Amino acid sequence: MTDKYELTMLAAALRDGVAERRTTFEVFARRLPPGRRYGVVAGTGRLLETLPQFRFDARACELLAEFLDPDTLAYLADFRFSGDIDGYAEGELYFPGSPVLSVHGSFAECVVLETLVLSIFNHDTAIASAAARMVSAARQRPLIEMGSRRTHERAAVAAARAAYLAGFSASSNLEAQRRYGVPAAGTAAHAFTMVHTRQDGPDEPAAFRAQVDAFGPGTTLLVDTYDVATGVANAVAAAGPTLGAVRIDSGELGVLARQARDLLDQLGATQTRIVVSGDLDEFAIAALRAEPVDRYGVGTSLVTGSGAPTANMVYKLVEVDGIPVRKRSNHKESRGGRKEALRRSRSTGTITEEVVYPAGQPPADTGPSRMLTTPLVRDGQLVAGCDLVAARERVASGLESLPWEGLKLAPGDPAIPTLLTEP
Amino acid sequence: MTDKYELTMLAAALRDGVAERRTTFEVFARRLPPGRRYGVVAGTGRLLETLPQFRFDARACELLAEFLDPDTLAYLADFRFSGDIDGYAEGELYFPGSPVLSVHGSFAECVVLETLVLSIFNHDTAIASAAARMVSAARQRPLIEMGSRRTHERAAVAAARAAYLAGFSASSNLEAQRRYGVPAAGTAAHAFTMVHTRQDGPDEPAAFRAQVDAFGPGTTLLVDTYDVATGVANAVAAAGPTLGAVRIDSGELGVLARQARDLLDQLGATQTRIVVSGDLDEFAIAALRAEPVDRYGVGTSLVTGSGAPTANMVYKLVEVDGIPVRKRSNHKESRGGRKEALRRSRSTGTITEEVVYPAGQPPADTGPSRMLTTPLVRDGQLVAGCDLVAARERVASGLESLPWEGLKLAPGDPAIPTLLTEP
Repeated sequence: MTDKYELTMLAAALRDGVAERRTTFEVFARRLPPGRRYGVVAGTGRLLETLPQFRFDARACELLAEFLDPDTLAYLADFRFSGDIDGYAEGELYFPGSPVLSVHGSFAECVVLETLVLSIFNHDTAIASAAARMVSAARQRPLIEMGSRRTHERAAVAAARAAYLAGFSASSNLEAQRRYGVPAAGTAAHAFTMVHTRQDGPDEPAAFRAQVDAFGPGTTLLVDTYDVATGVANAVAAAGPTLGAVRIDSGELGVLARQARDLLDQLGATQTRIVVSGDLDEFAIAALRAEPVDRYGVGTSLVTGSGAPTANMVYKLVEVDGIPVRKRSNHKESRGGRKEALRRSRSTGTITEEVVYPAGQPPADTGPSRMLTTPLVRDGQLVAGCDLVAARERVASGLESLPWEGLKLAPGDPAIPTLLTEP
Repeated sequence: MTDKYELTMLAAALRDGVAERRTTFEVFARRLPPGRRYGVVAGTGRLLETLPQFRFDARACELLAEFLDPDTLAYLADFRFSGDIDGYAEGELYFPGSPVLSVHGSFAECVVLETLVLSIFNHDTAIASAAARMVSAARQRPLIEMGSRRTHERAAVAAARAAYLAGFSASSNLEAQRRYGVPAAGTAAHAFTMVHTRQDGPDEPAAFRAQVDAFGPGTTLLVDTYDVATGVANAVAAAGPTLGAVRIDSGELGVLARQARDLLDQLGATQTRIVVSGDLDEFAIAALRAEPVDRYGVGTSLVTGSGAPTANMVYKLVEVDGIPVRKRSNHKESRGGRKEALRRSRSTGTITEEVVYPAGQPPADTGPSRMLTTPLVRDGQLVAGCDLVAARERVASGLESLPWEGLKLAPGDPAIPTLLTEP
């Protein structure tokens, strides 16, 4: 989990003595993905969970001996991050320039964390930010994450976690349940209906009977393998009017949901819920608001960040031995120096401005505001928890705090401006 | 790595007796990503490597006992895939409907592989397909993959592998080197230059001297932290005219590359190469063809599939006990039955058509053609290797076999049509 250049920089730094300089690296996004009005910080918990395991074992050092000198290898063999980390609590909203994470320590120990930190934040934040838009589009209707198959098998687990963090109710991914306690959901695919095919043709009733037999009438039956109306009738025939739910995975979902609702009601299955899935994104979810849909299953668009598969956060050196530093090239300017942030709001709780200021120098008159920078690691030890449920609540209250334009799905500017104050 | 519904289907199938029916599941993409003219099959090697480890240990079974019955748990405890797998060799091109993988076995053993198979193929194929377009855009100039930080930390390793497969020369990712033998590359980031800042300001010369001191004049110096012209002069001053390369990571890359080339030549560093990086995709690479660029570093666009982060492959049941089956819903039609494929070409080697036919029934008169379906697994044992270098050569010859329109970067139809023959 380390890019080669981190270790070559380390080697050169150990050799010329800058390795022990005190540095601060800052993680931030120069801008939100095009048209997005807010982002959701995610990955903090996974980073804190991973940090203590970020070591270089004997086998790794052996392989690295190909291009590293003995001093560097000795440093890595003993490596353990012993610095401090501050950052936004997981689940906070963020905006352009928000210092979502600040890593303080020797240059040597900070520089080797770059890839790990960015991989986790760029992935998890991209998913959580897209997921939050879907949650707000769905209003109070529950969302189920089912995109594992559309992304890398390990990324899928982190994606399920990020979706839950952002307000999804459940995930198809069992490893996310085992590892992070994300409720798992899922009953059957079209293959289960089709495997009941006989020589003389399909036998959907047999498939439904088998599923009800195994899991009771409260199960969810997938009714669109052949014909939705017939599927709904077969489903109620198999499970009776206490059938838990039907799922429709293809076709014109709004039209089919209405037809299914009418048919279910006629058959007395008035409490049976309707789950829709199949190429849903935040816009499709919003478009189904007026339809009798009880739950949404979301796959591809969730795990690919709905058009923004990476958050484009960067990990930049901003301070060396107390001296603010910054790169001077075009279009990549960032303010030097260690920073903290707070968020101003009206008395109603609606947020108005993100204020990023030199560490320890908050603006004098803030009015109602909330400190965003919190201690996460001190002297290499975790001082903050990775409570996923608390992070989930933070996303929910963050969405409530947005001005109403901030929740619009259409492309627009960030919901609040970011003010960088001078030292 | 399993979605919950695979195990609920398994439980219901074991209970009603369909678990032992002989099935074939097929992996294919209904269409290429919008505008793409070909895809590159990737993931086969990773699947074959992972398959023998796909087991359910005691701890997993204990957790699954929450929703599974004892018979299902007993089945999983003994699980080992014992069926057959056929498929396209890794690195082959594919087109809409190409049966890139066919999994044959009992319903029980095939259905539980869905998420694993699709996660690997959808991720790796998306990356390799984007990478191949970049390779063809770069003509013979080498490409370095440096996108680890823009994607999930484990996906990054698979992305580096997929990029190498598609023709990239190297990757920043050390784990990809350790695990797959992908050559690793990388020297320094802007942080290394900036950490040499003194009280009175930046000290780029000190940073360059430190790097040359550690790695010799053949290293690559990053010259755009402050000013590219000064950076180039400082670089040659530090390393002498045998400096290996300079890297420019921001700004108007074409203009800066020309300025750097002129300056390097004036300073006698005529053999020093120029590496450019920073938001490159296949279009930006092509746009730099006329500029004095020697190597490209590609990050974000590579690991996000350059606009198509997932290949949208599906895993569909196509045959049950010899009976072809298919789903009948709108827009998702696929041909039932076990299939194989061959690719027709002209005598020049230029390909003309993909022919997908019922297994064992190839078209009578094929003309020049090549069989695409090959045995990968028999009775649960691997019968094909996972040779990454061979797969890489397959991509190269695949690109050579495309009709010229197939290599155009602009959106268009698939380079060759797919013909599905009837039984």
